[in-house]
Amino acid sequence: MKTEQDKNIPYKTYLDESELPKSWYNVRADMKNKPAPLLNPATHEVMKAEDLAPVFCDELIKQELDNDTAYFDIPSEILDFYKMYRPSPLIRAYFLEEKLQTPAKIYYKFEGNNTSGSHKLNSAIAQAYYAKKQGLKGVTTETGAGQWGTALSMACSYFDLDCKVYMVKVSYEQKPFRREVMRTYGASVTPSPSMETEIGKKILAAHPGTTGSLGCAISEAVEKATSTPGYRYVLGSVLNQVLLHQSVIGLETKAALDKLGVKADIIIGCAGGGSNLGGLISPFMGEKLRGEADYRIIAVEPASCPSLTRGKYAYDFCDTGMVCPLAKMYTLGHDYIPAPNHAGGLRYHGMSSTLSQLYDDGLMEAVSVPQTKVFEAAEEFARVEGILPAPESSHAIRVAIDEALKCKETGEEKTIVFGLTGTGYFDMVAYEKFHDGLMEDYIPTDAELNESFAKLPKMD
Amino acid sequence: MKTEQDKNIPYKTYLDESELPKSWYNVRADMKNKPAPLLNPATHEVMKAEDLAPVFCDELIKQELDNDTAYFDIPSEILDFYKMYRPSPLIRAYFLEEKLQTPAKIYYKFEGNNTSGSHKLNSAIAQAYYAKKQGLKGVTTETGAGQWGTALSMACSYFDLDCKVYMVKVSYEQKPFRREVMRTYGASVTPSPSMETEIGKKILAAHPGTTGSLGCAISEAVEKATSTPGYRYVLGSVLNQVLLHQSVIGLETKAALDKLGVKADIIIGCAGGGSNLGGLISPFMGEKLRGEADYRIIAVEPASCPSLTRGKYAYDFCDTGMVCPLAKMYTLGHDYIPAPNHAGGLRYHGMSSTLSQLYDDGLMEAVSVPQTKVFEAAEEFARVEGILPAPESSHAIRVAIDEALKCKETGEEKTIVFGLTGTGYFDMVAYEKFHDGLMEDYIPTDAELNESFAKLPKMD
Repeated sequence: MKTEQDKNIPYKTYLDESELPKSWYNVRADMKNKPAPLLNPATHEVMKAEDLAPVFCDELIKQELDNDTAYFDIPSEILDFYKMYRPSPLIRAYFLEEKLQTPAKIYYKFEGNNTSGSHKLNSAIAQAYYAKKQGLKGVTTETGAGQWGTALSMACSYFDLDCKVYMVKVSYEQKPFRREVMRTYGASVTPSPSMETEIGKKILAAHPGTTGSLGCAISEAVEKATSTPGYRYVLGSVLNQVLLHQSVIGLETKAALDKLGVKADIIIGCAGGGSNLGGLISPFMGEKLRGEADYRIIAVEPASCPSLTRGKYAYDFCDTGMVCPLAKMYTLGHDYIPAPNHAGGLRYHGMSSTLSQLYDDGLMEAVSVPQTKVFEAAEEFARVEGILPAPESSHAIRVAIDEALKCKETGEEKTIVFGLTGTGYFDMVAYEKFHDGLMEDYIPTDAELNESFAKLPKMD
Repeated sequence: MKTEQDKNIPYKTYLDESELPKSWYNVRADMKNKPAPLLNPATHEVMKAEDLAPVFCDELIKQELDNDTAYFDIPSEILDFYKMYRPSPLIRAYFLEEKLQTPAKIYYKFEGNNTSGSHKLNSAIAQAYYAKKQGLKGVTTETGAGQWGTALSMACSYFDLDCKVYMVKVSYEQKPFRREVMRTYGASVTPSPSMETEIGKKILAAHPGTTGSLGCAISEAVEKATSTPGYRYVLGSVLNQVLLHQSVIGLETKAALDKLGVKADIIIGCAGGGSNLGGLISPFMGEKLRGEADYRIIAVEPASCPSLTRGKYAYDFCDTGMVCPLAKMYTLGHDYIPAPNHAGGLRYHGMSSTLSQLYDDGLMEAVSVPQTKVFEAAEEFARVEGILPAPESSHAIRVAIDEALKCKETGEEKTIVFGLTGTGYFDMVAYEKFHDGLMEDYIPTDAELNESFAKLPKMD
């Protein structure tokens, strides 16, 4: 099934260190309809840089609010760190293609070859750098599955910054190894909700047995940052600045494809808050926005947390405690928490404002997939391609396989590119459930979603 | 501290796929004093191919017994699989050098970028290939820390072979995630000792509460293989054939160094059974044996299991059950088990016959290091180089740091190359102990060792 061209395409393509992107690309610069601005949760006024300064680092706020600058130079200190694990490989899935007997050409960009086990490090090191440059003492954050917390711990250790992580209690208890990796990098990890913050105490008083949620951990981390001198809060997804840093994924992917002389037809990424998807697609979306090329771009989300496919495009709180700014996004409501049998990440109630706007403008598609189908794809992939994928990443694998099987039916030789965001070494509890036949799918009912939508803030 | 030459040396050097070694190198061909042959445990006669055939695959026996052929072609099916994760990077430890403020140049060959998390896959895929080629139905093996079992599971899944793993019971219980990765690749995993084998039943009857040992799991795996039609036994270290397959590590390392124009002064590897060390050093040792170049070669072993530094060079059983052939090696006695507080692998009582002979001939050095010092080095390394190392690999890191610090004192600009065999994602229980100050060092007394030596088989 291999063509002449295929013979010249290696299994793995590594760019040289000298080919590392020197700038991040800001897709907002090419968007006609810009993402909606953040609003003050009390007054509903547009948040300005000075309003955000108590929470975020100054330079990151500039990146957050800048919808016009197309390229931001990557500081050399960050480029040095990137060299530890970047350029990441673009892999031609020859073994998967053979297994599927598909005429489709499948490529994946693998971001798991670093100790944090995912792409999260790309933004963590940038955020730590700007915090250090501002002379801060430390940063706070939240983590659910633990990938972001691990990445930030590594980044803070590199720049000698304090790192305070609020880890959703149920993860803290079920994933002691993730916690231990963070400790290896010197981070302080607290199960959330905790008695360390006012919001934590309030939540614990109201719900003594709660196992925590991402929204609640965000509230605690923000409170801690704003109440501790020399600290700011950092976030691993959703925000514009994060998508900017993650554009390094897409820029490398595009550079490698160009080098190979390959044009993608379909680009697929998993989507929780949007950090990976937004980064992977950015240069391709840029071409699409400028009318230079066309691509099918597909966001894949869990059926148990379907913000794009079943959410409302509306202003909502970014956190449960309702202390963060309001963002306009596809949202399931700030109180929405996926059922306890949901495995892995991709559990945030909303979606990046940038991606929400692009989706609303019809520039990308979205599909949701049930988790047993995701784990089936994960296992099939692991057995032929060797890499044990994270549950999050396996959402993209599921749809890449589905699209490749469609090509098998139609005979089309499409080129599919998907993002393999990370490895599943810390997700074996979920794999075990799957192997033992104990994994269930959860799909919220319309009634449940409507109840959650009813709590969306009333806008004038 | 960087010289002009350094400016041209990237942080990571990847060979092209086309530069993958096409042959394995057999260091025995260049040894004047060949490793001693395997002996029949009952008659003490030299084992011939036909004696080994019920246990091992035919082609692997040829490799095992061949002390003369310098190069063995790597079959194309194995080369295809190697492309999934090879060539592995040779990394210049710029960040570690800066942290240590040493004039030494430090390089490490990183074998952890694959799902098995270590170099073990290099031999697993070769052994699975020859088993498949022989028309076998499946293979059996033992695993302690779990790296070898995981690697073999992946390899068997690729060639559609049954894989039966006897996992030391204490590891089976303490490392459920390792077990689960093996299941993802379709392996059947049994805690050892088990009631599935005669030797297992015997051991359980004699020691009802035993948590198992590597030597005991080997006995069970061998019994299962020899009593099941269409099965053979495979082993992940110690044997000549394994060192042959692992030579791919050293060949790539040497090719990358040659490409960079760098000559190593010191080569360091951790040593348990010798699979990584033997593979890493093989082409360098070949040059040394042929008088073409000189290198300091250092084996690093745990102070709790010091076969080279405190063992006897004698014929001993390879397993506790005394069903395997006798091998002449540096050994602590076939009953020797490191204290329960010993973390990670490198717990085999003996050392590869080939390495034992090279050590006995004064061609390499050996040092033993206590585990708290090993974990200190591991954490220091993780923080600056980003990679969370396996406890086994960290033995080499410890001595590489020590040698680099000696250079700092003397001002010598030596080039140090060490093998980073794998990642520590499944070893967080040990890291936790270390962080909590609960890790202890264990160094066997002379009396303990003498008691163990007393059980060495009497040879005529």
